[in-house]
Formats: sequence, structure tokens, C-alpha cells
Amino acid sequence: MSYSIIAAELHKALQDQDTALVETLASELNPADLAQVGHHEPASRMAVLLHCVPLDKRAATLGFLEPQEQLAATAGMPVSELAELVAHMSADERVDYFKQLDRERQQTLLKALPPTVRDDLLKLARHAEGTAGAIMTSAFMAIPAYYSVARAMQTLRLKGADVETIYQVYCIDTSGRFLGTVSLREIILASSENQLAELMTEEVIWVGIDTPQEEVARLIARYDLLALPVLEGERLVGIVTYDDAMDVAEEEATEDMHKGMSIGKIEGGLRSASLLDLYRKRVMWLVLLVFANIFSGAGIAYFEETIEAYIALVFFLPLLVDSGGNAGSQAATLMVRGMATGDVRSRDWARLLGREVFVAAGLGLTMALAVSVVGIFRAGTEIAMVVAMSMVLIVIVGSLIGMILPFILNRLGWDPATASAPLVTSIADASGVLIYFAIATAVLGL
Amino acid sequence: MSYSIIAAELHKALQDQDTALVETLASELNPADLAQVGHHEPASRMAVLLHCVPLDKRAATLGFLEPQEQLAATAGMPVSELAELVAHMSADERVDYFKQLDRERQQTLLKALPPTVRDDLLKLARHAEGTAGAIMTSAFMAIPAYYSVARAMQTLRLKGADVETIYQVYCIDTSGRFLGTVSLREIILASSENQLAELMTEEVIWVGIDTPQEEVARLIARYDLLALPVLEGERLVGIVTYDDAMDVAEEEATEDMHKGMSIGKIEGGLRSASLLDLYRKRVMWLVLLVFANIFSGAGIAYFEETIEAYIALVFFLPLLVDSGGNAGSQAATLMVRGMATGDVRSRDWARLLGREVFVAAGLGLTMALAVSVVGIFRAGTEIAMVVAMSMVLIVIVGSLIGMILPFILNRLGWDPATASAPLVTSIADASGVLIYFAIATAVLGL
Repeated sequence: MSYSIIAAELHKALQDQDTALVETLASELNPADLAQVGHHEPASRMAVLLHCVPLDKRAATLGFLEPQEQLAATAGMPVSELAELVAHMSADERVDYFKQLDRERQQTLLKALPPTVRDDLLKLARHAEGTAGAIMTSAFMAIPAYYSVARAMQTLRLKGADVETIYQVYCIDTSGRFLGTVSLREIILASSENQLAELMTEEVIWVGIDTPQEEVARLIARYDLLALPVLEGERLVGIVTYDDAMDVAEEEATEDMHKGMSIGKIEGGLRSASLLDLYRKRVMWLVLLVFANIFSGAGIAYFEETIEAYIALVFFLPLLVDSGGNAGSQAATLMVRGMATGDVRSRDWARLLGREVFVAAGLGLTMALAVSVVGIFRAGTEIAMVVAMSMVLIVIVGSLIGMILPFILNRLGWDPATASAPLVTSIADASGVLIYFAIATAVLGL
Repeated sequence: MSYSIIAAELHKALQDQDTALVETLASELNPADLAQVGHHEPASRMAVLLHCVPLDKRAATLGFLEPQEQLAATAGMPVSELAELVAHMSADERVDYFKQLDRERQQTLLKALPPTVRDDLLKLARHAEGTAGAIMTSAFMAIPAYYSVARAMQTLRLKGADVETIYQVYCIDTSGRFLGTVSLREIILASSENQLAELMTEEVIWVGIDTPQEEVARLIARYDLLALPVLEGERLVGIVTYDDAMDVAEEEATEDMHKGMSIGKIEGGLRSASLLDLYRKRVMWLVLLVFANIFSGAGIAYFEETIEAYIALVFFLPLLVDSGGNAGSQAATLMVRGMATGDVRSRDWARLLGREVFVAAGLGLTMALAVSVVGIFRAGTEIAMVVAMSMVLIVIVGSLIGMILPFILNRLGWDPATASAPLVTSIADASGVLIYFAIATAVLGL
């Protein structure tokens, strides 16, 4: 692909302020690529780039930019020009952009927009972040169910350019009530006298406007849907298309990975996040875990005499304690991800826990074998035995903590992903300290 | 939705072997839901369920099952019946199923299949796992570019039922060379005399048959594509549709999350994986990390005198060492995920590292404040000062390790995700031990 070559030339042309060349080069790239170029240019140059692109493509490119990039690239734009651009964006991207603006800019923009666009925008903007309502588009193809295939095709030709997709047609009755869907494929394969009502599927998967966006993405992926209808009462108010579902799924996976490491939700990616935001989203759990780790310290203090008598025991402390934390984090991650993808459900709990005991025992024995070799050479048979026994027990206990914690959190109505690796590690650590020194005290006869 | 009610009744009907009722209930569910029911039934009942469903739906349901469930549900099926079923599966799902079979069953099945299906299957089956070739389907709509819109529509009506999607039409020349794509929307909006060649986009995003599947998924998501053409030389050999891209993206996210916790690739989800597989995919890194953690132990042994003189220092060891590991794991996760989604690129390295110094310093100072309160009460001003100073340094060093490691691995041609939380934690731990006791030895004047 020649993208990288064109992108490099475009970068140079922007630097040289050669707008004629920028125009030529930009015409070679599609909106997603133009936005990619924009990710690595300062806002002022992105504004120039947008200016060099025809209106429809400009609107599509703006839609592909990150929220903060959108704001920066349009900050200096006169309101009449901005209104024209925003009017050409797709309905769902328009409302996302609109929500980023400050109140004053929102008001001036609204006044400059064509009335139909404004009404649509205000209707979409009232939905809460992270719901189906917030990611849906109002530009869908609704056709009365009594229409014939021929008449439906006419309507598609007439209005097809303005909607997000024509590949799903939504059937309504005369009062606007949603009845069912017909795919364009079915329409094309049917004979032209057929009524849509005859072709229509009435058993439709749908969601309400308040359905969480991750549920929307999950349904689209599970049923291989092109678009998912969003209902308010019996009326169809919007659709969410598969491409938005992909974005949501990626966003949610990122959020889950971050959560798994006790990092809060960061807006707009690592590259564009502010230092303060990065600090804030990491600090809370880190400080909480400092206090959680006091328990490990307290455990150590409790066994101070044992440690003083056998200072060699401390050599094995990090190794044992970390092993429990690692095995536990693995178990928690397997469980949390399994629950997120729908692979694991609450009723599988007991069976999975039983299996984990066996797996963890196997892991613990293998690791005990590894560590006892080190133990014998380093500290003699007696301590090696203590270390090996501790390893088995610590790995089993750590794994069970990692497996149980997500379920408990889920029961309490929390997100199971709160059972992050650092949290599991802290709990497993404290248990590890107790197990190790308790066994040592018992075996070494203190 | 009534899915859960129907599913519960279906479960009961299967238990009672009431096939008439199973048939009625199954007709209410779509293939994705039937497969969902199958996830929680033993194979023999799933076979009965499949038997009660019409052929087309049976094939689609089989496609939605997990690989191991597919095998189990069809294990006892006579080969003629299996061939009929397999012939009705979509081309890409058919080849996935076929690859699971043992050699002998593959051969008998091939003999029973219609020749065109067999040839197609063998052609698709030769591609390596995890490539575009392995996930593509050969059932796409290719139409000569010189056709008029009217003639193209005729062709679509004639052959549209047999292809994966008709919403993208692939234009070829008389010798079968791939020229470009036209969307069905463009065809419908155009006048009937237009030639496809006039409507066609020639600047098409495409991949080769060996392109890794995660790259395929990334392109489909980035360009909001419905389907991505797969070329071999100048010939179009298949397409990958958005729904397969969604599955790949989910699979890859799961793999990355597991890798982030040093877990290898597990086939078919936590619920259906074998105990041995779960053990094998976790044990290698756990054992390696046991040995890695010996460095922490060695660090402790080196400072044995310091510890014996100030045994109170050990109280703060887990807390300090874990803090470095936690901050480092956070940094590594942010970086690895940023690289996987394309948010972060190699050239951003220096800037992100610079930012991380500030963020980590802020985190370290906050955590030092928290721990020094504990320190003063527990062990007096002097040790509290040692602990606080260590905390700042440990958190900064841990964070930088977490940030740098993925880049180094990437440079070496490894997957950056190998910079897992457990690995980062082990390295940060060893650094933490050294920093802590070195500061203690210096400040406490030993």
C-alpha cells in the first residue's frame, strides 16, 4: 500500500504550506487515512488539511478524528463554515462532536444549523453517555410495511443517499410503530409485487435507548448483525451499525485491560491523555494497595522471631509471595475475561473452582520442584522442605483467591474486573506471608 | 426478550426427549441462540437438537458452535447426512469445521461431498491458521466490470442467494483479474444504463492470503469496511466479512489479556479447555518467574546485615516492592494496549517516556506521603524517611521499566505483550529490593 508514501509527502506539503499539493495528495487518501495523518500533525495543520478537502470528505474525516483532535482542528473555524461541515457529518458522529463543545459554542452552532439537523441533533444529544441512545444514528431507512418491493426500491433510490445503511430496511405501520425488518438482499431476491410485510422478519433483536453500549456491541457480534434497532416504546428511534459496535468493543476491551491493572477509564488514548488525567486514573488504587500491603508487613512483623532465628528464610520470601500473586492474577484474568465475553456464567462457578484446584495443585507442585532445587543448594534440606511445602499451598490459595474474587464482586453488584491483578496480588501476598512463616515456625520447631 | 424462557423450556424438552416439542421450540430461536443453548447441553442432546431443525438452520447453528462442540455434536452422524449438512454451511465456517476432523473422517467426508463444494473446501483448507486465507470465504459476488447496472442487478438476483454478501460487488475483467469494488448502494442509486466500471472504486483496501488475521481485523475496523478482498497475485480469491473480523478482534483481545498475565493461547475458552491445556499454558512462565525472583532473594541476602540490624525494615518490604511492581504493570499495560490498538507507535517512544517520568514522580510522591504516615507511627522518623525516599524512587524506576520493556521487546522482534505484568513485577521487585536496602544502608549509616 502506498499510504505511508503519500502520508509522508502530505506531511511535507503541510509543512511547506503548499496547499495546491496538499489538495492533490489528500484526494488520493480516504477519510480514515486522512484522519491517521491528522493524528501526527499539530491542530493548525490539520485545519489546513481539512480545508483542502471537499465538504463531504471533510465531514467524514472529522468523524474519524479523536474527540480532542476534532475540537482542536475546528477551534478557529467561523461558525457558518462549521455549521455547514457539521450538517454534513453522519448523525451519530455529529452528536459525539457536539457534546465535546463548550456551552457557548454549542449555542452559536445550533443557531447556524438547518432546523431539521438541529432538531435531530438535540434529540440524539439527550441520551446518557455509554448507552445505545448515545451511539445510535437517526438516519435509518424506514418504509411502510404495506409497500410493494417495487415501491420500496423506488423509496430506496430516492432517500438511500441520506441514511447510514440501506442494507437493512425497517418496516413501520401507518402510525409509525415498528413492525420488523427486511434485508435488502431479501428485497432484491423477491419478486417486485411482493409486499414488504410478506418478507419481513418480526422476531427482531432490538434494544432500548438506555441499554449499555457494551451490551449493544455484544448483541451485534453474537448475532452477526449489520445494524441493531433501538426502540423507545413501540417506536424505532435509531439504529446502531456494526462499525460503531466494533469501536465500542475495542474501547471496552481497552477499558477491561486497564481495569485489570487498576487503571481507571482514560479518555482518548494514552498518547493524547493529559498528564493529570493519567496520574488521577492510576493513583487511587496504588495508594489503596499501599495500605492493603500493610497486612503483609504485619504478617512479617508477627513472625519476627522466626525471621531473626532463620534469616535465610527471607531469601525465599519474594519468590514465594510473587508466585502466589502470579498464579492468582492468572486465574483472575481468565475468569474476568471469560465473564466479559460470556464464556463463563455464574452457574459455572462451582465446576470451574473445582477444576482450578487441580490445575493449581499441578502448577504448585511443578514450582515447588523448581524451588526446592534452589532451596537445597542455598539453605539445606530442612528449609528447602519448608519452601517447597509453602509453594504448593501458596499457589493453590493464590489461584483460588483469583478465581473466587471476581465472582464475589459480581454478586455484590460490582464489576468483576475490579478483581485486578494488583488487588489479587496484594491479597495473595498477605496469605503467602502467613502460610510461609506458619509452616516455617511449625516445621523448624520454633 | 423471551430467549431465556424458551431456552429453559427447550432444555426441559431435550431432557424429556420430547422431539415434537423440541422442534416447535427450536423454530422460535435463531441459529445464534440455538448454539447458545448448545453451550450448556451434553453433545448427545445437541445432536438431537440439530436433528430437529431444518437443514439450512442446522448448518448455520453448527457454524455458531465452538470447535469442540461441533465435533462432539456431529461425531455420531452418518457420513451422508454429515455431507449434506456440511455442504449447506457457509464456505468459511465449513473449512474451519473440516480442519478439526481427524484425517480419516476428512477423507470419508470429502468423498461424500458434491464436487464443487469439495474443490472449494480443499482450496480454502490449504491456508495457514491465523491468516486472511484461513478466515476468508470464497462465496463473493464477482461481476464483469463492463456489465450495466441493469445486468448486474439481474446477476445479483440470480446468484445473490449463494454468496456471503451482495452488499459489496467485486468487479473483474474478462480474464478474471480484480479491478475494483462497487457497493450495492451505489448500484441502486445509479441509473440502469451505467456501466459498473464507471461506478467502481479502484483504490481498494485489500490484503494477501498470508496477511495475519489481526491485521485483517484492524483494517476492517479502521476503514469501517463491510468486507475486505483477499488477493492472490491479481486474482480475487476470497473476502473476509465484518462479522468474522469482530470474532477475530475479540479473540485477539482475549489473547492479549492472557498474555499480559503470562498465559499462553488457550483454544476454545476457559470453560471447555482441558485441565492439561490450562496447566501447560500457565506453567512455563510461572516457573521461569520463580527463577527470576531469585534475584530479589539474592538482593535481600546481600543486605542481610542491614536487615539483622534493623529488622523493622522487613515490615515495609512487601509494600514498597509491590508498589513498584504495580506502577510498572500499569505502565506496561498502557503501553502494550496502546501499541496493539495503533494508538502508540515506535516514534512516540521518547515523548511518552518523558511524560511517564512526570506521572510516575507524581504517583511516587503521593504514595510516599501515604507510607510515611505509617512509617512514623510504626518505626520512627528515620526509617519513615528511608521508606518514603525509597517509595518515590521505586515507583519511578518500576514505571520506567514497564514503559521501556514493551519497546525493547518490539525492537527485538518479539510481541510487546510479552512484557506481562508478572515479568515487569519480577524485574521491578528486584530493583525495589536493591533501591530500598541501598538507601537504608546509606541513610542509617551501616
